[in-house]
Amino acid sequence: MNESWVTVVGNAATRPDFWETAVGVAVARFRLAVTVRRWDRGRDAWADAYTSFYTVWTWRSLAANVAGSVSLGEPLVVHGTLRVREREWDRDRDRERDRPLQGDGGGAAAAAPGVDSGGGANQPRRWVTAEIDALAVGHDLTRGTSAFRRISQAKPLLNALTGATSP
Amino acid sequence: MNESWVTVVGNAATRPDFWETAVGVAVARFRLAVTVRRWDRGRDAWADAYTSFYTVWTWRSLAANVAGSVSLGEPLVVHGTLRVREREWDRDRDRERDRPLQGDGGGAAAAAPGVDSGGGANQPRRWVTAEIDALAVGHDLTRGTSAFRRISQAKPLLNALTGATSP
Amino acid sequence: MNESWVTVVGNAATRPDFWETAVGVAVARFRLAVTVRRWDRGRDAWADAYTSFYTVWTWRSLAANVAGSVSLGEPLVVHGTLRVREREWDRDRDRERDRPLQGDGGGAAAAAPGVDSGGGANQPRRWVTAEIDALAVGHDLTRGTSAFRRISQAKPLLNALTGATSP
Amino acid sequence: MNESWVTVVGNAATRPDFWETAVGVAVARFRLAVTVRRWDRGRDAWADAYTSFYTVWTWRSLAANVAGSVSLGEPLVVHGTLRVREREWDRDRDRERDRPLQGDGGGAAAAAPGVDSGGGANQPRRWVTAEIDALAVGHDLTRGTSAFRRISQAKPLLNALTGATSP
Repeated sequence: MNESWVTVVGNAATRPDFWETAVGVAVARFRLAVTVRRWDRGRDAWADAYTSFYTVWTWRSLAANVAGSVSLGEPLVVHGTLRVREREWDRDRDRERDRPLQGDGGGAAAAAPGVDSGGGANQPRRWVTAEIDALAVGHDLTRGTSAFRRISQAKPLLNALTGATSP
Repeated sequence: MNESWVTVVGNAATRPDFWETAVGVAVARFRLAVTVRRWDRGRDAWADAYTSFYTVWTWRSLAANVAGSVSLGEPLVVHGTLRVREREWDRDRDRERDRPLQGDGGGAAAAAPGVDSGGGANQPRRWVTAEIDALAVGHDLTRGTSAFRRISQAKPLLNALTGATSP
Repeated sequence: MNESWVTVVGNAATRPDFWETAVGVAVARFRLAVTVRRWDRGRDAWADAYTSFYTVWTWRSLAANVAGSVSLGEPLVVHGTLRVREREWDRDRDRERDRPLQGDGGGAAAAAPGVDSGGGANQPRRWVTAEIDALAVGHDLTRGTSAFRRISQAKPLLNALTGATSP
Repeated sequence: MNESWVTVVGNAATRPDFWETAVGVAVARFRLAVTVRRWDRGRDAWADAYTSFYTVWTWRSLAANVAGSVSLGEPLVVHGTLRVREREWDRDRDRERDRPLQGDGGGAAAAAPGVDSGGGANQPRRWVTAEIDALAVGHDLTRGTSAFRRISQAKPLLNALTGATSP
C-alpha cells in the first residue's frame, strides 16, 4: 500500500550484475541514467538539463532476461516502484548479496561510486540512493529496433542463462 | 498541461499499421491488450481478472522502429499520455489517415472492431476509445529476451523502413 | 499484477453518488473531466486541447470522505488504477448497484449520459468507459485552498456520513 | 523530454517553507514522508515496510495555496516530476534561496537533516536527494475531509499570503 509507481526512460549506466540468492531466486541489478532534455528557446534546440541516477532491481525471469539482453549504454524504459533509501556503508557493506526479497521490505544499493558521501575513514558513511523495483523493463524503441524471443516460463531458463553469462 | 501519464504492460493485439502523413511524418498505430491478474486465494494461484484495450500511437523514429520490431502478440511496456476519446463514425471515418499531429490536439481511433457501438444503420454511430500517445515502447523482458540494435538518428531510416514494409 | 496506475488532474463533472453495498461497504462514484491544455504559439497563450472523461470509484473511508467533501466542478487530483471497460446496457443495467468489490475484478460504469452508443431500441447497446479505482483523491491546491480535518479510522464515520446524506 | 512523472502518497514531514524569488515568483518547499505498508501474512495485518523522504517544490499559485493550507503531518497526494540530485554542501549552501525556476533545469534541496553525509569538517559534503517538482498537490481524502475554497487566478493572492506568513 502506498507504493510509488514510476516509469523512467534512460540508459544503462552499468552492465547488469546477476546472481542467485541463497534460496535460488535470480536477481539482476544495474544503474540507470535518466537525462532530462528541455527546449532551449534561445538556441531553438533541445538541450540536456540534468541527469538522475537510479539503482534498478529485477527478479526471477525478468532478472534472467535483463542479464541476457541489456548491454552498457543501451536505452531502456523501466517501470516499477520507487524507494528512496538511506544507507550506511559499515552496516550494509557485507550484506549486499544477501539482500532479502521485496516482500521483506529489504533493499541494498549498488556500490554506487560517486554517490558515496565522502565521510572520514573512521566514520560510518551514509548516503541516499533512489531504487526502483522493476515490474517491467524494455529496450526503448525510440532509439533503435529490437528482436524479441519469447522464453517459456516452464523451461529452466535461469540455469541456461547463468551458464551463458558465466563461462 | 494536465497531461495524464500512464504506463501499461500488455500484448500487441494487432500488428502495427504504419504510414506517413502528407507532410512526411511517420506514424505507427496498434491495439494493446492489458490483462490484469489477481491472486486467487481459493485456488492459491494467479488468475486473469479482466482485459483493457488501448489504441497506441507512435511517431517519427519510434513509429518506424515499432513497425520494424513489434509482432502480433508480443509483450510490451508502453509509456505515454492517455486520452479518452468519443468519436462518431460518420464524421471521422474518412479522416482517419489524415490525423493531425499531437501538437494540434487532434486524434483518431482505429476502426476498433468490437468497440463499435452497434447503432442503427442510419444513425451516426458513436463510441469511446482509450488512446495512448506513446513516448516510449519496449518489449517486456519479463517474458523473453530482446536483441537491440541502435539506429543512428542521422540516417534516413524512415525511407528504408517504409520501403521494407511496402514492397 | 499488470495494474495500470494513472494520475489525472481535472474537475468533478458530477456530484459523488454515495451508497453502501449489501455487505456494508461504502462506495462513492463520480465523473471526472480532464482538460488538456497546450501552448498555442500563434496566440502566445495556453488553449484547451481536448477533454477526457473518467468514472472514478472510491471505497470505504475514501468514499465517505469524498461524498462529504467533493462538490460539482471542484478541481481534483485522482490517483488509482485504470480500466477500460466495454459494457452492454441490457446486461449491466440492473446490476449497477450490486457491483462487486475490486478484489472480484468486477466493475460497473455510471449511467454515463453522453457516452451511450445511441443504438436501436431492440439492440443491446454497447459502449466503453474509462474507469479509475482510486487509491487517493485530493482537492488540487493549484486552484485554491483547502482546510483538512482528519477523521480517526476508529470512529464509525460511515454511519454518520450516510445519515448526513440520506435524511 | 524524458521527464519522470511520479505520484506519491504520504505525510508532510515539515511545514512548507514559503518565499518569493528575486523576480517575484512564489515558491513553497516541504519534505514528504512516504511509508509503504505491506500485508503481513503471519500477523494477518498491514505493517509498515519502509519510509522514503522527498523534497517537494511548488510554484506560483500552487505554492501560495500549499503555504496557506498544509500543516505538519497532514496526509497528501503529490503529483509531479522526479529528480535525483547529488549536491555538495559547500557549493550549494548559499544559493538555496536563489534557485532558478524549473525551466532552467536548476534545483536546490532542503537542508535535509538526516540526509547529510556525515563528512569531515573540512571536506565538501555531498549527498543525494530525491526531489519532486509538483504539478498538483492535494489533501488525501482517504484520511479525512477537506473544505475547498477556490481562489480566482485574477486576484493578487500572492501578496496577501506573503503578508500573512511574513509579518
